[in-house]
Amino acid sequence: MDPTSPLSASLPRVGILGAGQLGRMLQEAAHRLSVPVVCLDTPADAPAKQLSLASANVANGSFRSADDIRKFVTEQNVDVLTVEIEHVDTHILDALLKERPNLRVYPAPSTIRTIQDKHAQKAHLRAHNVPVADFLSVATPADVLRAANDGGFGFPLMLKAKREAYDGRGNYVVKSAADVEGAFTALNPKRDAKALYVERWVPFVRELATMVVRDAQGHVVAYPVVETVHTRNICHVVVAPAQIDGMLAKKVQKVAEQCIASFDGAGIFGVEMFQLENGDIYINEIAPRPHNSGHYTIEACHTSQFENHLRVLAGLPIGSTDLKVPFACMLNVLGAPSSDLVDSLAACRTSLTVPGATVHLYGKAGCRADRKLGHITVVADTFPELQDKMGTLLKMDPTAAKAVQAALATAGGSAAALAAAVSPALRIAAPKVGIIMGSDSDLPVMRAAADILDAFEVPYEVTIVSAHRTPLRMVQYAQDAHQRGIQVIIAGAGGAAHLPGMVAAITPLPVIGVPVALKVLDGQDSLLSIVQMPRGVPVATVAINNSTNAGLLAVRIVGSAAPHFREKMAEYMKRMEQEVMGKVDRLAKVGHKDY
Amino acid sequence: MDPTSPLSASLPRVGILGAGQLGRMLQEAAHRLSVPVVCLDTPADAPAKQLSLASANVANGSFRSADDIRKFVTEQNVDVLTVEIEHVDTHILDALLKERPNLRVYPAPSTIRTIQDKHAQKAHLRAHNVPVADFLSVATPADVLRAANDGGFGFPLMLKAKREAYDGRGNYVVKSAADVEGAFTALNPKRDAKALYVERWVPFVRELATMVVRDAQGHVVAYPVVETVHTRNICHVVVAPAQIDGMLAKKVQKVAEQCIASFDGAGIFGVEMFQLENGDIYINEIAPRPHNSGHYTIEACHTSQFENHLRVLAGLPIGSTDLKVPFACMLNVLGAPSSDLVDSLAACRTSLTVPGATVHLYGKAGCRADRKLGHITVVADTFPELQDKMGTLLKMDPTAAKAVQAALATAGGSAAALAAAVSPALRIAAPKVGIIMGSDSDLPVMRAAADILDAFEVPYEVTIVSAHRTPLRMVQYAQDAHQRGIQVIIAGAGGAAHLPGMVAAITPLPVIGVPVALKVLDGQDSLLSIVQMPRGVPVATVAINNSTNAGLLAVRIVGSAAPHFREKMAEYMKRMEQEVMGKVDRLAKVGHKDY
Repeated sequence: MDPTSPLSASLPRVGILGAGQLGRMLQEAAHRLSVPVVCLDTPADAPAKQLSLASANVANGSFRSADDIRKFVTEQNVDVLTVEIEHVDTHILDALLKERPNLRVYPAPSTIRTIQDKHAQKAHLRAHNVPVADFLSVATPADVLRAANDGGFGFPLMLKAKREAYDGRGNYVVKSAADVEGAFTALNPKRDAKALYVERWVPFVRELATMVVRDAQGHVVAYPVVETVHTRNICHVVVAPAQIDGMLAKKVQKVAEQCIASFDGAGIFGVEMFQLENGDIYINEIAPRPHNSGHYTIEACHTSQFENHLRVLAGLPIGSTDLKVPFACMLNVLGAPSSDLVDSLAACRTSLTVPGATVHLYGKAGCRADRKLGHITVVADTFPELQDKMGTLLKMDPTAAKAVQAALATAGGSAAALAAAVSPALRIAAPKVGIIMGSDSDLPVMRAAADILDAFEVPYEVTIVSAHRTPLRMVQYAQDAHQRGIQVIIAGAGGAAHLPGMVAAITPLPVIGVPVALKVLDGQDSLLSIVQMPRGVPVATVAINNSTNAGLLAVRIVGSAAPHFREKMAEYMKRMEQEVMGKVDRLAKVGHKDY
Repeated sequence: MDPTSPLSASLPRVGILGAGQLGRMLQEAAHRLSVPVVCLDTPADAPAKQLSLASANVANGSFRSADDIRKFVTEQNVDVLTVEIEHVDTHILDALLKERPNLRVYPAPSTIRTIQDKHAQKAHLRAHNVPVADFLSVATPADVLRAANDGGFGFPLMLKAKREAYDGRGNYVVKSAADVEGAFTALNPKRDAKALYVERWVPFVRELATMVVRDAQGHVVAYPVVETVHTRNICHVVVAPAQIDGMLAKKVQKVAEQCIASFDGAGIFGVEMFQLENGDIYINEIAPRPHNSGHYTIEACHTSQFENHLRVLAGLPIGSTDLKVPFACMLNVLGAPSSDLVDSLAACRTSLTVPGATVHLYGKAGCRADRKLGHITVVADTFPELQDKMGTLLKMDPTAAKAVQAALATAGGSAAALAAAVSPALRIAAPKVGIIMGSDSDLPVMRAAADILDAFEVPYEVTIVSAHRTPLRMVQYAQDAHQRGIQVIIAGAGGAAHLPGMVAAITPLPVIGVPVALKVLDGQDSLLSIVQMPRGVPVATVAINNSTNAGLLAVRIVGSAAPHFREKMAEYMKRMEQEVMGKVDRLAKVGHKDY
């Protein structure tokens, strides 16, 4: 029944508590690696069990029952036990570890226990110097008021349940003193004095997340940073990579790794974060298991979150967490408000005609509003392509319906514009081209490059960097550019025009030089300063004052490996030809004397 | 048991004859789409059945038995019947179609029947004007001699069995008249007069293949063209895309589509071809099912061959067949000569540490020499990366062991060099950069660009294209370049240097211009002719005679989206710095007078 294989000296038999969609996707990875897996859950045809002879009919029981877990581990000869949901009885896990010397439980029961209690989780993180928002345990509504006033939390603040909180359940935004009683009752009708805590309101600009895999030796490796978009507090859209500066992304990965390094045991973890306007990061919460924000990794990364979870469970090496495609997006397929399956799957049907879209249905037995029925991953070579594909899907997505209606009223026709209007994560694209110039007096010349990039929808940034007046800033800019995600630099300069060549001497990126004409010498000084570079350091020089051509060259460079932009360039050239042909016709018609 | 979903008005229940690795991978795609699938095969734990509650214990029987097939279709309420192996009884399929008006069989039984008999297959293709090598049915050894001599087939020729031939079984290379008797006995010990045919020897330079998907309405869409490498007549390595000119690849896809358009019914087909030195293509053979040469599509294409097969079976739209990564390679995991599982899986274990490698084990019960136990797909952003990763795997691959030993003796140290030496498909990379010049007198200047590209392992081509003396050739070159896979053009010219600008006016690719100095004017004429382009058509101009910088700029452009080349550029710049620092030290040591 179990295909065994010598991928390692002894592949363990993995038991998973729960057999929902996360177990199902773990099962898929397990088949490929020949890691034997068995899932414990009540329904005989639970999503994960549908994919397995091993789990069928043998592992029926509740992952919330200590007795069922004990029976499962014993009868199924489980070597490594893990969870696809953190709401399990961790004390039985501790007991089993004592009883069965060869059993491993990953993540460690203590890790799961800390994370189950969001207050304990925050306390743990704060104790390990991981940035979290201020928080305080509250026993009564009076405690909440005290926290808001004397405690300095102010309003609004978050009132949160410590346990069994997920998909937005257990959270309450308390806007003023008048809300406190109601919030307390809503979250804690039994008035348990240990159930709630308050958290300072975080004025975040976006929500970020990253998966982190940790092996039994404590090595931690982060996946790319993604932006998550929630609708009614449920994860709705994930954009990978998040369209933020690459240096900020590295910082976010570091914080997430630091966070997971503080826990015990092996496994994959989801880390959800808030980003503030100033680039500060606060950890929001941790999931000690595969996570919705990491589903995109199946199609978009070298190793999926599911495979890496199994790898560290089985003692195999951690696989590369890098993206293998430039951009990816995930759309959750949630039960429509009507609870109708046909309504709910409209975006899935549409996605069958969207190149690069992959449907994952979970095989769930019933459909109800907001139930996670599946997800769609979309990959794309360019950000405009991603926007376009996602716009096409969002139009059909019942969860986005209201937002789509609102956006359609303002966003104009294109699917890409719709996507950007519906989902902020699809709006901002991290710059691919940096336009720099020695002085603001160069701006009138350089503006044309930006106009071209706008027209081709290539994301860019514009700033002033002077070789002679801000030499250190220039060095910094040239050193960082590729780390931030910039692919091409356009540099304009006049006279003894050193900026393009100096930047090219530092960055490994292609640098386009625009000679700007000054009052004397007609720009010949600028041209020769820029073009006559020594062997070893090339500058792609365009004509004097012709930053239009610099913009077009940047598009051609970005398009050299991206057919999307190459096709747009071909169209642009066709239009130029037609314009001239129009003049040919007119000249023929009216004659050269009247032209 | 069956998760049903309204992905289409009525998703059919798909029955697959056979439950090996192809059925297993079909099963994986079926789960995601919620297409109910059931497989017929003898072992209860056959590879495909391990992934399915639906097939377990219920669909035991032989796909070669008419009775078992009838029972399977009836008891399992199969709506669409398909095959994962073509050696089935097609007459029972015809009979079932008559008995059950709502049943569909894809591909059509007549298609499977034609393809089962390789002689009938060739006759069918020839009748549809698809290029195949000459062939002739032979009843006796005397017929073979007659074909070779009077028939003009000559020696060597291929003697082939019409039926039950796969993985090289049923083929015999007859080198001379002396081989004929032995070949006849080997392939046809019973001397059945209808069993064999001869085929003219095709002096091919490489074997190509492509998957083609065909829907019930007869639309056909080809996947990318791949190069296949066989070891002991078994598919061993597949490289995608084949490193051939993009225009030839389009022609190959057209031939393959024409080929599959000639058959009836829906499904995925593998088309194996020979490419001759002159670019001519001959079809070798067709598989009416998912095929080993298409396994790479799971990780590397928008829609896998398995998903597209299910889609056309279920009446869903054909998914995009495009690559979503730049390069991919597949290595079959075959049973080692020792039949030992640990030996056989050595490359699999290694692949766990290779970024972009994905292991697929099929869960087969036993290991014997040359048995297909699994496969490894590797994806990469650049061809040198692909070579490097594949070299690492081939070193550990028992099937390649002899070739590796031979190559290690000559290939130098690097994994990339090893891969190129072991597998010709990994040797030639299609050019990414085109170097052109107006005259051979420019070659001494332009050669330095080629040297740089050699050093960075960027594949390129060099040719003469003159704007003034071969204007039509220039237009053709500029029009085709991007269709052939070129990403950047470097053009050198002197005097009234029109070539770079004229090429840039036609191609959407970035064009780098190298002003070549003539005897008068010091190259200033060339420089101004190249750099001072009008608005709308940019040329990336470098310094006079400095084609080194043109090569470096091309590397930076190729590297703008490929970290592999960007890192190499950073290393190159570091080396330049160290060289100068060496001179600094020497000058300090010996003093400027003695320097």
